[in-house]
Amino acid sequence: MSRNYELFYWPMIPGRGEYVRLALEHAGAAYVDVARKPPEEGGGIKNLVAFLGAAEAPLPFAPPVLVDGEVRLGQTAAILDYLGPRLGLTPDSATGRSTALMHQLTVSDLVSEAHDTHHPVGTGLYYEDQKAEALLRARSFRDTRLPKFAAYFERVLEGTGDWLDAGFMSYADLSLFQTLEGIAYAFPNTWARVSSDTPALRAHRNRVAALPSLAPYFASDRRLPFNEHGLFRHYPELDPA
Amino acid sequence: MSRNYELFYWPMIPGRGEYVRLALEHAGAAYVDVARKPPEEGGGIKNLVAFLGAAEAPLPFAPPVLVDGEVRLGQTAAILDYLGPRLGLTPDSATGRSTALMHQLTVSDLVSEAHDTHHPVGTGLYYEDQKAEALLRARSFRDTRLPKFAAYFERVLEGTGDWLDAGFMSYADLSLFQTLEGIAYAFPNTWARVSSDTPALRAHRNRVAALPSLAPYFASDRRLPFNEHGLFRHYPELDPA
Repeated sequence: MSRNYELFYWPMIPGRGEYVRLALEHAGAAYVDVARKPPEEGGGIKNLVAFLGAAEAPLPFAPPVLVDGEVRLGQTAAILDYLGPRLGLTPDSATGRSTALMHQLTVSDLVSEAHDTHHPVGTGLYYEDQKAEALLRARSFRDTRLPKFAAYFERVLEGTGDWLDAGFMSYADLSLFQTLEGIAYAFPNTWARVSSDTPALRAHRNRVAALPSLAPYFASDRRLPFNEHGLFRHYPELDPA
Repeated sequence: MSRNYELFYWPMIPGRGEYVRLALEHAGAAYVDVARKPPEEGGGIKNLVAFLGAAEAPLPFAPPVLVDGEVRLGQTAAILDYLGPRLGLTPDSATGRSTALMHQLTVSDLVSEAHDTHHPVGTGLYYEDQKAEALLRARSFRDTRLPKFAAYFERVLEGTGDWLDAGFMSYADLSLFQTLEGIAYAFPNTWARVSSDTPALRAHRNRVAALPSLAPYFASDRRLPFNEHGLFRHYPELDPA
């Protein structure tokens, strides 16, 4: 890798930026996590907001944004689709590329639904101001939506084996892992129940967790922990025993 | 086009299937809208559900599903990314492909947020059972989210001109159009306000509406009207004057 990728994302949460980080880290790609640098070196939220407001075409709607020389790209799945062939994380065929993207988008749908459990009314409001609605939405997520997604991925893995696309680990596998990590953090009781019915999914999560390529990253402080400002938030009232 | 594409989607709504239809129709591609055929020819909801339940790998999570010979693919944006180069709807460069996908995904985000105005608590419940929450979510959509998306696309178009990617109409342009049609149907009062501030977006919508390539389709009964079973629903209480 002769030049650095630049990732622009909120510095205080794993969030959607983490999906890009996992792909870059797995491949050992050289990249700069720009907003995590000190403010005087261009990092921090203020500089990030300035970058987003001043960005030239094609404008990104929101972070994460990847910059690769002249290329600047927003939207997590578009970034991963772009990086995949460059990082060896997309099967080398037109169909493989589409299948990886399909799986990534289903993971993205699950991520959005997990997020909306704590923000069912609006992203502009605080959780505390939509708690009653969050209780309802979280119940629907626990009882219906999460089991549906989990059963789906279980069935995919029963058909393909170790990875979502038979015989090839793609960026979508890393993304599925990260999402299950987030759900296990936010909904430990629910996840214990759901995962007991989905052994292939449980094994998949363990398989990614044990990748030697990611061990140095997981042991580093580059790996941000989940917290209550991100996509996946642990509010005990949303995850009854 | 030597063979037919097959599209599998709910037959009674435009929904997410319409994004695929617009691309196919614009290109004059031969395709079969399978679920809209008579049940005895494989159409109808019952056959669609059977197809989804029996589908071989790679399994789709939900419709729309595109079948192209051996290829079967779910997720609207993955289908469009696959079809784009085949239908002349993706700029012929790696960056163009990524940019079109990025724009499609931002349109998809807007679609999901428009949908969630009438289903903020859960897709498994009726609108009538989540009307109080829908009133709150719709207000956030009208006052904050829709203006934010509209201002974003306005700014993109101010930079690029006629189309989201300068000088090239991609599938994402068709998708943006369809989404604005849906929003104008569901939220006519809100859209009148928002579009008065976004002249480039208004012009973009008119530009797609006037495409000669789509005129036969718009005049045909293949073009399904919006209704209160789909993504974009007109509930007057969610769109006050």
